[in-house]
Amino acid sequence: MQLTDHLAEFTRRDWQTVSDPDERIRFALIGLGWFTTERVIPAIAESDLCEVSTVVSGSSEKADRVGDEAGAEYRLGYDEFHAGEANERYDAVYIATPNATHLDFVESAADFGKAVLCEKPLEATTARAEKVVRTCENAGITLMVGYRMHTNPAVRRMRELVREGFVGDPALVEGAMCQNVFEMISPDPNQWRLDADLAGGSALIDLGIYPLNTARFVLDSNPVSAQGTTKSPHEHFSEVDQHVSFEVEFETGVTAACVASQYAQQRSQFSVIGTEGRLTLEPAFFGEAQLTAERNGAKADFLVEPVNEEVEEFDYFADCLLSGRDPEPDGQHALVDMRTIEAIYESAKIDERIPITA
Amino acid sequence: MQLTDHLAEFTRRDWQTVSDPDERIRFALIGLGWFTTERVIPAIAESDLCEVSTVVSGSSEKADRVGDEAGAEYRLGYDEFHAGEANERYDAVYIATPNATHLDFVESAADFGKAVLCEKPLEATTARAEKVVRTCENAGITLMVGYRMHTNPAVRRMRELVREGFVGDPALVEGAMCQNVFEMISPDPNQWRLDADLAGGSALIDLGIYPLNTARFVLDSNPVSAQGTTKSPHEHFSEVDQHVSFEVEFETGVTAACVASQYAQQRSQFSVIGTEGRLTLEPAFFGEAQLTAERNGAKADFLVEPVNEEVEEFDYFADCLLSGRDPEPDGQHALVDMRTIEAIYESAKIDERIPITA
Repeated sequence: MQLTDHLAEFTRRDWQTVSDPDERIRFALIGLGWFTTERVIPAIAESDLCEVSTVVSGSSEKADRVGDEAGAEYRLGYDEFHAGEANERYDAVYIATPNATHLDFVESAADFGKAVLCEKPLEATTARAEKVVRTCENAGITLMVGYRMHTNPAVRRMRELVREGFVGDPALVEGAMCQNVFEMISPDPNQWRLDADLAGGSALIDLGIYPLNTARFVLDSNPVSAQGTTKSPHEHFSEVDQHVSFEVEFETGVTAACVASQYAQQRSQFSVIGTEGRLTLEPAFFGEAQLTAERNGAKADFLVEPVNEEVEEFDYFADCLLSGRDPEPDGQHALVDMRTIEAIYESAKIDERIPITA
Repeated sequence: MQLTDHLAEFTRRDWQTVSDPDERIRFALIGLGWFTTERVIPAIAESDLCEVSTVVSGSSEKADRVGDEAGAEYRLGYDEFHAGEANERYDAVYIATPNATHLDFVESAADFGKAVLCEKPLEATTARAEKVVRTCENAGITLMVGYRMHTNPAVRRMRELVREGFVGDPALVEGAMCQNVFEMISPDPNQWRLDADLAGGSALIDLGIYPLNTARFVLDSNPVSAQGTTKSPHEHFSEVDQHVSFEVEFETGVTAACVASQYAQQRSQFSVIGTEGRLTLEPAFFGEAQLTAERNGAKADFLVEPVNEEVEEFDYFADCLLSGRDPEPDGQHALVDMRTIEAIYESAKIDERIPITA
């Protein structure tokens, strides 16, 4: 493909097969935290193929309030959801509850034969994530994991350029994803994101997963080993990693060096350096990815209006359901991240490189 | 210090104590490769405190040619240098020969009581670097290692800002230093830079040393452990590392994740991320460092005309000699890099994090 083609159709939905469905996919949104209310509900309102029919929360007050805002006809408590109430009213569930509770909701969704779009990380541990995947496979339901970078046009164009050989042979990846989480949630030490059992970790499992997964997607390659170092100087991070630096070695021989932090100055960058060129997303992971392509001393900035990543993600999931095909970021895909993350945490403990096996 | 002060005096030589000496420091330049001829000789011509009196080469043709260009009165072969010929004609030696030959030239300089400015890395191995340091200490001569980033104003201002707490508590460092070495030297597999015995390594010891040493300088902290991964897909790198990714843990708890390559698309970046802000050099290591300061969503680019780093480095060394004080990047300083680099190479072999001890 020529550069002009990349530019002319930069934000094209190269995955879209359904544009004017008879029925939209009706979602039950489970877990009404800031990401669901601030990002997902407005995105579904803007989407082509999705609608909210049901909201599910542990708090009936919150379910009512958010249900009104989202125009959702049905508002369920967690028990009501698990009991199957109103389950003829939705086609799919979106799960954005604390990581360690994903499995319970997936089990009920599987019982009802509903498709699942589950937030990343898939679960708090690899063992529980494997149960999620088995549960969906046994029930024959579709499972997609919410890697919003997969449907970001800048990331998709980056992957195409890598495949076309723009960077020559990819050699090294740099990645960074840092934020101050207390700008999004209250600095409450009882917050589930700071609870090791509920979250499974913090900087790495919640943020380091972005450069890790984006590298896998863009390189079309999986990790073979990983190592890393975690630090938690802030008192609220007594159970989980506040900062992490890590290194991942891929099947192709590419190595990645990444940093992530849950409480530091915001930073997001992702770069693939090859023998002939470099492709960079900066910013990368906060919904405003911008692609830069460099080769032989020349540089092109693709200054393209960022898309709404959640609109793309939800429409992609709905498109897969409506056309009867499997989404690319499925459960097996997500398990590789879970195993890599667990390897890095293990490496930080025992000071060894950890091989990653299927 | 206020931001306005940082701007007003951005390129100030905060280290300069001598401005109009009776006599300049007269150098013997040993090793007349591209860095000496392209960078060092023009820099000395521009410097306040230095001059070239002598050039030393293994090739008398090259010594004559470069000697003419540099206006050097004395041209010596290596044997003549070691025999002490014309040694009353220079005050200091600059050593830019293959890494594994630095010790031999230092031994002769020490015999003649001459000060030494030695290119980084100090030697090809830690054991030989330790001998360099002992030799200089025993002879009571000054030894400085050519870390040109130490006298780069952007790096010095970055260090001041870190010390003043601009980034809050430093947490993470990102660093990258990649080049296509065959744009500077011929792609000759017999080149000393590709010879394990002569060079001691490639991507890490020649280029990874930049983010490593700059992190130590800017953070005022030394490594306590390190790990890394080396790759050498190109046939000319059968003996040394073509690419490296590595992670370094510092005494203060900061961790750094870095990449370097001797044969890839050019890339140079260095960033310190703290709890409150971020300081970035991009580009960083190719003589055109630009500093950016970010804090709480605001960003300042310091757009300052880059200085000539070699002029600064040589004048700093000369200033130390003329004022009778020790340079900051001395032999003991350089040994910490050598031990860290050896630790990373060892880690890449045995798949373990390696502690770094003095």
